[in-house]
Amino acid sequence: MQYHISDKIAPLKPSAIREIFKYAGSNDVISLAGGNPAFETLPVEDIRKLTAEVLEQESKTVLLYSQSAGHIPLRNALKDYLSRRHGFLKEYDDLMVTTGAQQCMDLTCKVLCNERDTVICEDPSFIGSLNCFRSYNTNLVGIPMEEDGIHLGKLEEALKTEKNVRFIYLIPNFQNPTGITMSLEKRKAVYALAKQYDVMILEDNPYGDLRFEGEELPCVKSFDEDGRVVYAGSFSKILSTGIRVGYLVAPQELMAKLEVAKQCTDVHTSMIAQLLCHRFLTERDIDAHISGIKGVYAHKCGLMLKEMDDRFPKSVTYTRPQGGLFLWVTLPEGMDGGEYATRLVKEHKVCVVPGSAFSVKEAPGSRNIRLNFSSSTDEEIITGITKCAQLLKDML
Amino acid sequence: MQYHISDKIAPLKPSAIREIFKYAGSNDVISLAGGNPAFETLPVEDIRKLTAEVLEQESKTVLLYSQSAGHIPLRNALKDYLSRRHGFLKEYDDLMVTTGAQQCMDLTCKVLCNERDTVICEDPSFIGSLNCFRSYNTNLVGIPMEEDGIHLGKLEEALKTEKNVRFIYLIPNFQNPTGITMSLEKRKAVYALAKQYDVMILEDNPYGDLRFEGEELPCVKSFDEDGRVVYAGSFSKILSTGIRVGYLVAPQELMAKLEVAKQCTDVHTSMIAQLLCHRFLTERDIDAHISGIKGVYAHKCGLMLKEMDDRFPKSVTYTRPQGGLFLWVTLPEGMDGGEYATRLVKEHKVCVVPGSAFSVKEAPGSRNIRLNFSSSTDEEIITGITKCAQLLKDML
Repeated sequence: MQYHISDKIAPLKPSAIREIFKYAGSNDVISLAGGNPAFETLPVEDIRKLTAEVLEQESKTVLLYSQSAGHIPLRNALKDYLSRRHGFLKEYDDLMVTTGAQQCMDLTCKVLCNERDTVICEDPSFIGSLNCFRSYNTNLVGIPMEEDGIHLGKLEEALKTEKNVRFIYLIPNFQNPTGITMSLEKRKAVYALAKQYDVMILEDNPYGDLRFEGEELPCVKSFDEDGRVVYAGSFSKILSTGIRVGYLVAPQELMAKLEVAKQCTDVHTSMIAQLLCHRFLTERDIDAHISGIKGVYAHKCGLMLKEMDDRFPKSVTYTRPQGGLFLWVTLPEGMDGGEYATRLVKEHKVCVVPGSAFSVKEAPGSRNIRLNFSSSTDEEIITGITKCAQLLKDML
Repeated sequence: MQYHISDKIAPLKPSAIREIFKYAGSNDVISLAGGNPAFETLPVEDIRKLTAEVLEQESKTVLLYSQSAGHIPLRNALKDYLSRRHGFLKEYDDLMVTTGAQQCMDLTCKVLCNERDTVICEDPSFIGSLNCFRSYNTNLVGIPMEEDGIHLGKLEEALKTEKNVRFIYLIPNFQNPTGITMSLEKRKAVYALAKQYDVMILEDNPYGDLRFEGEELPCVKSFDEDGRVVYAGSFSKILSTGIRVGYLVAPQELMAKLEVAKQCTDVHTSMIAQLLCHRFLTERDIDAHISGIKGVYAHKCGLMLKEMDDRFPKSVTYTRPQGGLFLWVTLPEGMDGGEYATRLVKEHKVCVVPGSAFSVKEAPGSRNIRLNFSSSTDEEIITGITKCAQLLKDML
């Protein structure tokens, strides 16, 4: 039969990353494309022990239905964690456990936006979030990035001219895909603009704990005086991506609606995963664990940058991230990131993501690619970058 | 600040069941309100062992990102299971793993419906699905139930007169909330009507395996000749509700879109839960396990019915389900289900769900309540029904 596909879903294409992920599964391909944490940083032995304990001691809680907002002890432990590490939980805020941080974007957009309402994003930005906002038929407006984050002048211009702006979507720390960190000044300025134009902010901070260089900066949420900032966090990069546990901080009034939306979506998040996170947060030394991860990523990022410095032609530029998982490469003028990525995987069996995947609007001829340094071994990084460099020389 | 809530979410109230669930948590309340399976039917020891094995033997697969459509070995095992037990998997069909069956409704509605498109439902129907369809601003049209399922004449009338009908939502086996099973004749007739009026069917079958009386009937999906039926299944009632694993069967062409929607929603379902389900399906005797559950539910349902037969006034009527978890009570004329449920919990500490919660449109003065027989002990069933009867006599 002929299927009627909704206007919101019909134009969406599968995420280029998710597609490449299928491809990157073959053993002879080096993937610098994904967004996985380094497997060796995951506390596998702890996960085994804690999961066994949870199933032994709390089987009824794990195996039956629970509350949509999440397992209460986990919610409380997360509130403590955020207060202690990020110092921003306000009295008027509440916290909900989500099925990965992706669900934070899904629920926030569903609750705040009618079709054709405007969402303002950094451009480029994380494709998973962009596609999520698109899947609600929103009007996506991209604001270019500068070295210290979103372009303030263009942001204000958009706030002035666009209709029904519901929120500004930001990844202030080690942004995906660029690796850029928003400066303290800009964090304050963006919050002030949001206040001036009375719009909300959705702050996505999946990599916030993974700073391996420079000084910690306060979250935008920490400036929040009037419940204007919704905050999305994740266990993906410190515990496991596969378990799918994230969390959303929002003012209570809004949370009531987010909870209804969560009920309609998946009732609640998987309890094995929630109780595992709870035990990990409360029974292990999470600060020491995070310190360990930082050391690994400092090394991997440093190695990748060194290889690029040594091997890439001078006409290639790239960001030098202070944390997170990604760096952003700008190819020489006239070179196309899509063509480069295609040739790279076909001729050299190295996967990277073409920058156009992260563009808010179609971006033919984008000169960018995104590289991931977290999930490869040292050897793979060296071989991968050597092959990247080889193709660059071939194409120049 | 003043929050802008989207038109689709603003009118939604929290699910009455989810709210009662919060309340039913106290130890001195007998809950006949929830939808949990009997805890004693869950294979807790197997779940412990299999989860430990998965984390021991497949830790990388469990802890890192995976494919949005689900873990391939689980998808294959489910296809085998459905072919073997329900005999309906078609060549053109594909299967996706979802975060509980609730997500099947979410993704199907998102992919098929624009705002104000029509979804036809049995009336009453499962509140979680109704709220999900509402959360996409659809035009919900309810068709009354008869003893053998949906009213065919009124269904055809709706198909003739309503605009942009995208699908008919059905729970053919032991429907939630009524416990009614659709007859074979009606299953065929509904499929024929869907074909005649060229609309799709979303067949929700969470309780299909739990028939403890009468003969198995083929799924509506088994009549599907042209990819018109999307099928939702679940591990909730046979393995665990808390792990949140369901699955969706749909024609490949539609599945491509459902997979994009899944990417936008939660990337993929929690891998610990998926791999546990895979091992349980492939390494344990699921047929024997299901037989065991049926025996428990036959007993519990029989006990509840016997207590009701013995104690309820003759002016109270109720369904006698052949499977599933619920039965549906019609109170004497002039009695209100909402008032009854409120007095029951306040005066007698017994929770039931007022029937109005399951109505497609507001239903003031609904005479119904839903009773769950699966999750209480024999003693709780006897005490609970005794108190129900006492209040009935008080109110008559």
